[in-house]
Amino acid sequence: MENTQTYIRDDFWQDYTELVRQTVIPYQWEALNDRIEGAEPSHAIRNFRIAAGLEEGEFGGWIFQDSDLYKWLEAVAYTLRHYPDPELEKTADGAIDLIGQAQHENGYLNTYFSIKEPGKQWTNLYEAHELYCAGHLIEAAVAYYQSTGKRKLLDMACRFADLIDRLFGEEPGQIRAYCGHQEIELALVKLYKATGEERYLNLSSYFIDERGSKPNYFIGEWERRGRTSIWSQGMPNLEVYQSHLPVRDQTAAVGHSVRAVYMYTAMADLALLTGDDKLREACERLWDNTTRKQMYITGGIGSTHLGEAFTFDYDLPNDTVYAETCASIGLIFWARRMLRIEAKSDYADVMERALYNNVLGSMSRDGKHFFYVNPLEVWPDASSKNPDRFHVKPVRQKWFGCSCCPPNVARLLSSLNDYIYDVSDHGKTVYTHLFIGSELGFETANRKVTLRQRSELPWSGRVEFAISVSDKANAAFELALRIPDWFQKGLPVLKVNGAEHAYRVENGYAKLERDWSDGDTLEWLLPLESKLIAANPLIRANAGKAAIQRGPLVYCVEETDNGAPLASISLAEEPNLTDRFVSDLLGGCIVVEGDGLAADESEWPADKPYQPLGKRSKPVRFKAIPYYLWGNRKPGEMSVWLRY
Amino acid sequence: MENTQTYIRDDFWQDYTELVRQTVIPYQWEALNDRIEGAEPSHAIRNFRIAAGLEEGEFGGWIFQDSDLYKWLEAVAYTLRHYPDPELEKTADGAIDLIGQAQHENGYLNTYFSIKEPGKQWTNLYEAHELYCAGHLIEAAVAYYQSTGKRKLLDMACRFADLIDRLFGEEPGQIRAYCGHQEIELALVKLYKATGEERYLNLSSYFIDERGSKPNYFIGEWERRGRTSIWSQGMPNLEVYQSHLPVRDQTAAVGHSVRAVYMYTAMADLALLTGDDKLREACERLWDNTTRKQMYITGGIGSTHLGEAFTFDYDLPNDTVYAETCASIGLIFWARRMLRIEAKSDYADVMERALYNNVLGSMSRDGKHFFYVNPLEVWPDASSKNPDRFHVKPVRQKWFGCSCCPPNVARLLSSLNDYIYDVSDHGKTVYTHLFIGSELGFETANRKVTLRQRSELPWSGRVEFAISVSDKANAAFELALRIPDWFQKGLPVLKVNGAEHAYRVENGYAKLERDWSDGDTLEWLLPLESKLIAANPLIRANAGKAAIQRGPLVYCVEETDNGAPLASISLAEEPNLTDRFVSDLLGGCIVVEGDGLAADESEWPADKPYQPLGKRSKPVRFKAIPYYLWGNRKPGEMSVWLRY
Repeated sequence: MENTQTYIRDDFWQDYTELVRQTVIPYQWEALNDRIEGAEPSHAIRNFRIAAGLEEGEFGGWIFQDSDLYKWLEAVAYTLRHYPDPELEKTADGAIDLIGQAQHENGYLNTYFSIKEPGKQWTNLYEAHELYCAGHLIEAAVAYYQSTGKRKLLDMACRFADLIDRLFGEEPGQIRAYCGHQEIELALVKLYKATGEERYLNLSSYFIDERGSKPNYFIGEWERRGRTSIWSQGMPNLEVYQSHLPVRDQTAAVGHSVRAVYMYTAMADLALLTGDDKLREACERLWDNTTRKQMYITGGIGSTHLGEAFTFDYDLPNDTVYAETCASIGLIFWARRMLRIEAKSDYADVMERALYNNVLGSMSRDGKHFFYVNPLEVWPDASSKNPDRFHVKPVRQKWFGCSCCPPNVARLLSSLNDYIYDVSDHGKTVYTHLFIGSELGFETANRKVTLRQRSELPWSGRVEFAISVSDKANAAFELALRIPDWFQKGLPVLKVNGAEHAYRVENGYAKLERDWSDGDTLEWLLPLESKLIAANPLIRANAGKAAIQRGPLVYCVEETDNGAPLASISLAEEPNLTDRFVSDLLGGCIVVEGDGLAADESEWPADKPYQPLGKRSKPVRFKAIPYYLWGNRKPGEMSVWLRY
Repeated sequence: MENTQTYIRDDFWQDYTELVRQTVIPYQWEALNDRIEGAEPSHAIRNFRIAAGLEEGEFGGWIFQDSDLYKWLEAVAYTLRHYPDPELEKTADGAIDLIGQAQHENGYLNTYFSIKEPGKQWTNLYEAHELYCAGHLIEAAVAYYQSTGKRKLLDMACRFADLIDRLFGEEPGQIRAYCGHQEIELALVKLYKATGEERYLNLSSYFIDERGSKPNYFIGEWERRGRTSIWSQGMPNLEVYQSHLPVRDQTAAVGHSVRAVYMYTAMADLALLTGDDKLREACERLWDNTTRKQMYITGGIGSTHLGEAFTFDYDLPNDTVYAETCASIGLIFWARRMLRIEAKSDYADVMERALYNNVLGSMSRDGKHFFYVNPLEVWPDASSKNPDRFHVKPVRQKWFGCSCCPPNVARLLSSLNDYIYDVSDHGKTVYTHLFIGSELGFETANRKVTLRQRSELPWSGRVEFAISVSDKANAAFELALRIPDWFQKGLPVLKVNGAEHAYRVENGYAKLERDWSDGDTLEWLLPLESKLIAANPLIRANAGKAAIQRGPLVYCVEETDNGAPLASISLAEEPNLTDRFVSDLLGGCIVVEGDGLAADESEWPADKPYQPLGKRSKPVRFKAIPYYLWGNRKPGEMSVWLRY
């Protein structure tokens, strides 16, 4: 996007962006300072203070703990773009000063190695997350520079990036390697865009191109370390870190899912910037595999907690699921880049699915509790008593020892305005990817245009646009409105100035080219309907089951509304789904109700485990709430999929 | 049972007892000697040779590896009871000599501690399995003595037991503890019965009574070891080893399932022998919990591979299941003891269920491949690509590094004759628990009676009995025939000498007291029917599903007969189940076929993961085979439960 500006003006989303600004960011600052009672300490600020020589002590937390502070700073930066807040900016400046004090003379910056293993820098790229943390530093620096104009953090990031650029590469004496946790690749693209320095782009390309080359760096490094590792036993698992093959040869999403999508994001960035077709094709292949064969209906990815990883095609268990919050956020990052390569509604559909369901559901309504794992089926007793499900929490946690997810949610939601539109070819086409009330300012043919979107999503599918052109003139451009995958009754109605208007459809977008006048209005009508959705029969876990979806929202049933066990409820042949807005439920939401059948307990004398199949069942009227709101009331069972 | 003798004469079971005799026992001897190509080495014999000073080397295998040889010897002993085999006996005698050479002067015997940690004996009762191995030595010794009359192994076992009896107890200087893996408790009861030495009974009682007392021994021991453990990290998990509470206070089956049922077996033994009501009540409570709330329809127990353990009531996942072979065997041991406390058909029903399904299914038809885990649902790709299911093997293995299960199967099947009858009160009542063709000899009122059972199970439910009385005289006694839980059409017909005869029902047994004449015959008619069985609605994993059972056999569908994915097949409203004997299938078995519906793939354009629920499905005729025969053909998906 060139010379554009987007502000969110949306009843639904502003609740969340405000929550991030007013609650999540201050709360997380407390967490980073270990001041949340009853929560696992973060150690992040303390580590910086120790590394800066301001305090005595041991390194605390994970090896990548620095990144939590960087991600928080990035979220602060996005917030400051639209909501100047001198107090917050002062806090952030203080944190930046602290980071600066922990930076080495040569630009190196990592509190773990400064405190705990000085001299061991760059000896464990497989696990030690140094470049990963550098990536988050860069992302924060670019964001902070862009919103405040302050260069201090950016300069620190550049110094570190320059050091890395000198150390890594194919020249004699350079380390021919890359990071075990991808992240710096996408960050370097941002740094390139912010500074115009091509060496950052080239370094990003280098890391991407080097990955998976033979002989594998991680194996050699492990040998040099005397075959020791921090976490894993035995030889490095190359698939887990997506270094089993050169990236252009990878066809299926494998391994740690956050690493994967962060890497795919950088690949998409590079494919666009360098015009590398092979890289673009790899992105497209991996996209198809990820979103068509390894994605939950909620936009979650990652089917196992072991390695926090993808497993294989169509393996999407609902109960032992991982679906990490960060992975869905990474999927959104990736989708955003794919949209820039090619505006196809499929990318935006996935982005919207992950956003409204997996990501939004990861945070409690109070902004202070988070899910790391986002299950589609919860049985609280199993979460506490079956070790295969210990990772599935029925209640959001205050903070995590490994707290990558909460600040990731904060930085995504505080930059949500970047995900709504694309303006291409100097204002020739304006794409609306997401229907989020907002104001877009852009230029086309020397006219300043403002596009005001008003959306009633996710409760109603009425979307309106109003166009203002500077000097009350006209402006010729093409409007492209996404036709969402959940709209399935032919084509949506588009009205221009009140009259229905034809449009052409391209790549899932309704396109209308026109010489727009100041004051023109559009209506984009996407009536919402509660629908039963089935999963591909190859997804064994969902055989014989259906989920309820209404617009972008996936629904779920909770024990508190429907009793337990939820599994004994099935959909009636004609479930007669109805929906109604309940204003006093969870801040107001549309509840979907339907006819179901439940097992008749009277058929089951006490404690009989098995008996001949009976025919009786009793009718019930079940009640489903949006998935993103689950777990905000009394803890209990939850299920997205219902038997039919 | 007093003065009784049982021989198996059964078409179905003799195949298996012969397989054990002719194949399993010789094969396992090769395995114990590390001579099976492509199988994990056992190290068992080699460890004894090293401990005996006959060979140099390091200890190999698990810390409890000795027990594999003991269990093999026990199986050999049972086989020799009915099939004298001088060659096999010579091999066994040689093994016993070898064991003798490894025994210490003071009676101590354990190759791990002799070779690897001399001087560390009894310092890690929590994990080191010394008493467990002693228990298996004792069981083997008693069996070998009883079938061959040879005392050598028995004397060795007594010397070791006497050492243990001196070392453990409440007297000053004694170790006040018990074993981390229960086994010696039940073995000491056998030793008491074989030798009449009450100190063995008392020692067994001591171990049972001491368990779970405060302060917990395992915690103190762990502290004394400097908080180190072999496997686990952190403080001992007392529930896993059933030492969280005194046994009489335990109400639910928890922890490692094999440990649990071995302990419950000893508790039942002791309750019977000592008349301890509290102990009997604990057994009954634990029985109800285990078999009504934590048992798979196949008689499998243990819902998680983590700790090979029970989880909690109604948590019986089919795919991440454990259902270890040894655990079902232990359940059979326990059921056998409960029947001796009180002849209730419930105990025999469970015994039969575990035997015909989980246990029989653990061994391949060739007797050379075994399942350790017995799943109810298999997706081979998931077993190889989803780490949550790596423990679920779609194909039986040749041998295991931890190979407790194969020799356990061998010793159970070779002593199956002990599970069929009980003769109580000096021949007053003769219980038939299992319908397995056999010959029972017993005495009543100074008459020698032979009861010949002819059974067509599991294929047909016709069971016949013929009575012979010595001197062609009469003999008055009560016959008690189990009414199986799978017979559900009122009461079975009993015919005496061809004429239908009334009987009274007590505790699930048909009882007929009579002055029997030599030559009397009975028919016990249990016509078999293929039935759809449902699970209690609280067992979430089976909601909306039914299993097929025919007599004692649980059925399953396999991919090789029905295609994949199996999950897309559901039962038709009227499935019209039919059965037929297929003589050339898997050695001959009854196949059950039924009408089902399968997902219509034409509704699913390539790679679409989710779409509105369609209405189309296509009719299929599915084919189910007995569960115990699964996995003997082309590897593929398998499922016991079918959607309806």
